[in-house]
Amino acid sequence: MKGQLAQRMSRTKKSFIREILKVTQNPDVISFAGGLPNPDYFPIEPLRAAADRVFAEQGRQALQYAPTLGYEPLRAFIAQRYTDRTGMAVAPDEILITNGSQQALDLVAKILIDPGDHVLMESPSYLGGIQAFTMYEPEFVTIPLGEDGIDTALLAQKAAHPQSKLFYALPNFQNPSGITYTLETRQAVSQILAENETFLIEDDPYRELRFMGEDLPPITSFNRERAFLLGSFSKIVAPGFRMGWICAQPSLMDTLITAKQGTDLHSNYVSQLIIHRFLQDNDLDAHIATIRAAYKAQREIMVAMIEECFPPEVTFTLPEGGMFLWVTLPPQLSAMDLFEAAAKQNVVFVPGAPFHVGGTGGNTLRLNFSNTTSEKIEVGMTRLAQAIKQMMLKEVIR
Amino acid sequence: MKGQLAQRMSRTKKSFIREILKVTQNPDVISFAGGLPNPDYFPIEPLRAAADRVFAEQGRQALQYAPTLGYEPLRAFIAQRYTDRTGMAVAPDEILITNGSQQALDLVAKILIDPGDHVLMESPSYLGGIQAFTMYEPEFVTIPLGEDGIDTALLAQKAAHPQSKLFYALPNFQNPSGITYTLETRQAVSQILAENETFLIEDDPYRELRFMGEDLPPITSFNRERAFLLGSFSKIVAPGFRMGWICAQPSLMDTLITAKQGTDLHSNYVSQLIIHRFLQDNDLDAHIATIRAAYKAQREIMVAMIEECFPPEVTFTLPEGGMFLWVTLPPQLSAMDLFEAAAKQNVVFVPGAPFHVGGTGGNTLRLNFSNTTSEKIEVGMTRLAQAIKQMMLKEVIR
Repeated sequence: MKGQLAQRMSRTKKSFIREILKVTQNPDVISFAGGLPNPDYFPIEPLRAAADRVFAEQGRQALQYAPTLGYEPLRAFIAQRYTDRTGMAVAPDEILITNGSQQALDLVAKILIDPGDHVLMESPSYLGGIQAFTMYEPEFVTIPLGEDGIDTALLAQKAAHPQSKLFYALPNFQNPSGITYTLETRQAVSQILAENETFLIEDDPYRELRFMGEDLPPITSFNRERAFLLGSFSKIVAPGFRMGWICAQPSLMDTLITAKQGTDLHSNYVSQLIIHRFLQDNDLDAHIATIRAAYKAQREIMVAMIEECFPPEVTFTLPEGGMFLWVTLPPQLSAMDLFEAAAKQNVVFVPGAPFHVGGTGGNTLRLNFSNTTSEKIEVGMTRLAQAIKQMMLKEVIR
Repeated sequence: MKGQLAQRMSRTKKSFIREILKVTQNPDVISFAGGLPNPDYFPIEPLRAAADRVFAEQGRQALQYAPTLGYEPLRAFIAQRYTDRTGMAVAPDEILITNGSQQALDLVAKILIDPGDHVLMESPSYLGGIQAFTMYEPEFVTIPLGEDGIDTALLAQKAAHPQSKLFYALPNFQNPSGITYTLETRQAVSQILAENETFLIEDDPYRELRFMGEDLPPITSFNRERAFLLGSFSKIVAPGFRMGWICAQPSLMDTLITAKQGTDLHSNYVSQLIIHRFLQDNDLDAHIATIRAAYKAQREIMVAMIEECFPPEVTFTLPEGGMFLWVTLPPQLSAMDLFEAAAKQNVVFVPGAPFHVGGTGGNTLRLNFSNTTSEKIEVGMTRLAQAIKQMMLKEVIR
């Protein structure tokens, strides 16, 4: 309407997490809220050396306009890593470099979603996915997660609907729940989607952060026809570069390139060359092993503190990797009320409600264990346990 | 529809220019096609030094997730430059850092355009703008450019339509035509848009590349209420960083932030800090003066070659800045045919048709004079003149 913003913006909300992050600037606050990697493990000096080499040796190329797909040697590196590690043969031209996974979500949504299309979502799901998709005005259809991943019986039912356009899955150490799909669930999901001609967006930023159990193949590896597999350097190198990618077959890639051209021509080329130089001159696997060991130790302290201090009525997930634990309070308790009580005691987390599209999940919350220290986990979890106990006590008295 | 891509993608075409650029990899080809700045003037060593300082002094901050608006000191620099040079007081929070101007176009389109809304466009207009807007399914309404800028009488008529949502203007050294709006046209445009509650997207990437005449205030400076002013470091520092911005009032900025969050969280933070460091440690004005002098000299040689070698039936614009000349062939000639003939003689340009949405402009073409040398201009323009003369001769014989 004249003089007014577009309809789609009336449905889109600011990120509650990013709003919380603003509040946590106070150094006394212990935050389990952000989804931030631990900056202690940023490879600052190796990246400094890589940047220096790029400016010295490839300055003119790095600073000029560049191909939409991205820097070919970087795409070849990513493709080769998939080929070596997932048994899925990927060619360099099947990789499009994006501004982090978040832009990948936006681009795929842009080329897939017509208003009213059904987007099948895990419940809970990643807030950034909900935000990206909302702008293309779909109808969200939620399917609960269990210990083995998505409820496949319900997925089959929902995918059969004539408007089921796509299923959005985070099968490894999901944000926010920490849940991982079993091999059987992955295979079943792939088959259900093929039978129903439903697209797959497989969002996989934490794949390399597994610290127990065995790597499992991407859902995409079983059938690539309508699948978009998303990856990122944010968790294994650094998020400040905003560097992610989409892996998709050529038939889909053509349309993605058109969308990427109209959206921002191409991703930051200087940073693509710096990351590629870093990958050539350093041992990525050794670097990732360091991150994994640190996150594993922090996750173990957090779990130990929950087991020691939280009331037994509170349940939680045991992630095999990634950066998050998911906590479920007794049904009568509100995680939003707990947030306010805990913030007063200088500890914060993200209430679960924003990760749900249907207004459920009011008694759930997400805890981040990557961007903190063992000491802070001990102090912060003690404070959080106290706040929970006080709330439960009030409930009993009331 | 199930199994199919979104409707919007059926309307969107790949960039013809980016396709041409692929062809021009042959070193024998002289290209006036790209809209590329001259890499001879990229400040490679100063940027190398800036990058080194950022990694050494601010590595942890640069590499982490960051605020959606962008790096505050960089936004303050941009805001201050507007305040000092345009008489328009801009606050740092009125600047959002984007992945080049192209993402700025996408974000503003995203928050403004509902399907069927009228987008008023200059004819010809910037291809990337047409691409960005097309994905939100507007109806394009074209208004011809004259020597003084947009035809304001026609703009007033088209803006009065109840669905006229926005006007897209490139008032300085327009891409592709090189035309600049007069002061009177700018004031008239601002008033027409205010009267009709029509938004303004003022795309201004070439502002600082004026090499003759006097700077003129942005249209936005006369009325900021519904105005988005877009700028970029691509032409004054380097495009490889993909670093641009939107200047808008807080009432609009709030919605832009929501859109930016859902689209890619925030722009590359490492590069924001590097560019800011570069701006602190170097004299930007001296750097821009060098670029201006070079482009001015190249433009003068190109104009001299046209005057010397082209048939008098061929007309052209005389830009006061920027990177492009616009050539109009006699109406019976096709610039697409000329492209094929010229490519055989190893000289290329961009035919004008893709810059028009209505299928007109078949006898027009764009010449870039920034990304070349005086020698190449002389050789390339001689070849092009020959190709034109041969085509005209054939026309006469036919």
